[in-house]
Order: sequence, then C-alpha cells, then structure tokens
Amino acid sequence: MARVSQEHLDARRRQILDGAARLFARNGFHATSMQDVLKEVDLSAGAVYRYFSGKDELIAAIVKEVLGEIRAAFADVTRQSPPPPPDLLVGLVLGRTLRVWSSLNVAGEPLFPQLIMQVWAETVRNEELAAVLTEVYTELRESWVLAVEAYQDAGMMRSDIPADHVARTMIATVQGFVAQQALFGGVPVEVLQDGLRALMSMPADA
Amino acid sequence: MARVSQEHLDARRRQILDGAARLFARNGFHATSMQDVLKEVDLSAGAVYRYFSGKDELIAAIVKEVLGEIRAAFADVTRQSPPPPPDLLVGLVLGRTLRVWSSLNVAGEPLFPQLIMQVWAETVRNEELAAVLTEVYTELRESWVLAVEAYQDAGMMRSDIPADHVARTMIATVQGFVAQQALFGGVPVEVLQDGLRALMSMPADA
Repeated sequence: MARVSQEHLDARRRQILDGAARLFARNGFHATSMQDVLKEVDLSAGAVYRYFSGKDELIAAIVKEVLGEIRAAFADVTRQSPPPPPDLLVGLVLGRTLRVWSSLNVAGEPLFPQLIMQVWAETVRNEELAAVLTEVYTELRESWVLAVEAYQDAGMMRSDIPADHVARTMIATVQGFVAQQALFGGVPVEVLQDGLRALMSMPADA
Repeated sequence: MARVSQEHLDARRRQILDGAARLFARNGFHATSMQDVLKEVDLSAGAVYRYFSGKDELIAAIVKEVLGEIRAAFADVTRQSPPPPPDLLVGLVLGRTLRVWSSLNVAGEPLFPQLIMQVWAETVRNEELAAVLTEVYTELRESWVLAVEAYQDAGMMRSDIPADHVARTMIATVQGFVAQQALFGGVPVEVLQDGLRALMSMPADA
C-alpha cells in the first residue's frame, strides 16, 4: 500500500465530514445512510470506513467539531476584562460561529443552523451525544457566569440576581436565534443585538 | 356498525394523539413506526386508521395542536393594555404553554420540549410543516410587535429600535429556553425571568 501524507489524510477526513454534515443538515441523521454519504463525497466504502466506522462515529465527530467552534468563539471574545456588554458579546460569538465551516454553505445559505436542529433532535435520544452537549453547555455557562459577574462587579448590572440565571438566559437567546435561522431563514445578527439593546433600555421595575 | 358518540370519537382521537406524541418526543419521528403507535395506544390498526391516514397526518395534527396552544397562551396574556413587561409576559406565556398537554408528562418530566426539538428537526426537511410553522411564527411576531410598540409608546423602552427586532429577540429567548429544557432537563421559568430582569437593569450604552 502506498504511503500517504498526513495532509492527504486530513483532507480526506475533512471531505467526508463536510459531505456528511451537508446531508445531515438537509435530511436529518435518520434519513441519511452511509450509502448516501459515499455518493455525496464520491469515495469508495473502503476509503470512508478507513476514517469512520459508521454513521454514529460521523455524527459524533461532527457534533464535537461544531461544539469546538462555539467554544473557541466564546473563549476568544471573553478574554478581555471587563467583557463587552451582552449585545456586543452575543454579536461577536454568533458572528464568528456562523462564519465558520463555510463549506457548509449551499447556494450562499448556511446549513449550520439546520445541522444544529438535527443535533438537538438526536441528542434527546442519544445518551452519548447528550453527555457531550451537557459538558459544553456547562462550560459555556461557566464562561457566561464570569462575564456576568464582571458586569455586576463593575456596577453595569444589578447584582441581586444569580449570575447563572443570566448566563442561561443569554445562552437561550443565542440558541433561539439559531433555531430561527434554521426554521425561517437567515436573519442578520444585528436583529438580535438590537433586541437586546432595547431590553437593556427598559426599567426593570416598570 | 354500532353508532358511537362524538364524545367517544374525540376521546379516541385524543388517546391516539397523546400516545403518538409520547413516542415522537422520546424517539423522534423517523424511528417511530405506525406499528409502534398501535402498540403504545393499544388499539387495532382499523381503529387508528379511522382517524389518521398515517404518520404524516399524525405529525401534522400534533404540530397544529402544539402551535395552537402557544398561540392561545400568547393571545390570553397580551389582551391587557399596556401588556406586562417582557419578564412577566414571557413567564406567563411559557408557564401556560409548558403546563398544557399534561398527558405528555412521563414520571413528572414534561416531554413537550423534547417534542418541539423533533418538530424543529422535521420542519427543516418538510415543506408542509415549514409553512405551518412560518404562519404561526409570523402571527407571534405580530403579537409581540404590538406589545413592543405599546412599551415604546408608554416610554418604557427606547423607540429608535424596530419593534420587529425586539419581537424576534423575545421569541428567540423563549425558543432557546425550550431547547434547554429538552436538552438539559427542567429549568424553572423564573430563571429566564431573572435573566431578563438583569438585562433590563443594564445601561444600553455601557
């Protein structure tokens, strides 16, 4: 067997993951077979099974990659202290997350949000995925808690509300925004940023 | 054939919808067969097919019912003018929506959020569902826009931000909260309300 370079191996792996992710985003995990993946990436079964033992391993690899991107995006923008206010922070994280994985664009429309919908649906019935998702959710909550505590310490936010409640709420707005992208088509991140700014302008005890 | 009362017909229909919804929430639409539904509701094929021609019709009926509940919950709480502030409004709508369909509780845990995850995933690949969901989303946005305009008219919220952007943001927080319920277990609605209140305490131009 001819020796192949690491670069070649990586490119092949990338090619398989991209093709599988496109199919999963469009058709869901259950309606996509390994045969469909072979056809989409135009490789032989032998070539594909060299990298992934089957659909479950493909799904797990894709989910870990998606979550890794979200994690990296967040880590990037919370490095400064104090962090930018929530409207800016959410815009930076979402903007970066939606830009990644550009190979997941079809005719200019990102398939990333649709892939996330399939991941959530699958997570409800797959304990392994649920464990991975919970780990990343916990980590994101901890990052947001630090940001919220910084807001509170700086007097930018009332401090009598548990930081974790604010963290969960901020993550919810991002999750809901991604759901809207998947279900109702592209929405600029600025829409969500505007909405947060409007909320921030309200007196809390109105 | 013996004549049966409307009440009996309605109860049977309810029994089939509840059973199918439980299976869909736990296992997804694709991994659930009509055989599974017959077994779950303990009825003959003849009895079930009298009401629903197949899985697609069951899915459509369940989705319409879920969306109808959300629509009714919202209509109920926006009837007053001006509407309660966002933290209260979201709590009222979500509280009511999560309480409905109590037959969808298994061991005290609501399956409703998990069903929503399956609906979203299915919507991405089903044009008929997408049309229904878009219609309700449009309607909810219009209701929220009215609420936001009332806040702006009353001087409770800055008025230089398009009301529709705020509407989308509020719907996103609710959607994200439901996703968290499905993926990471029950969270009291108060957590989201706290988060909104904390956001409302921030200076927008901090």
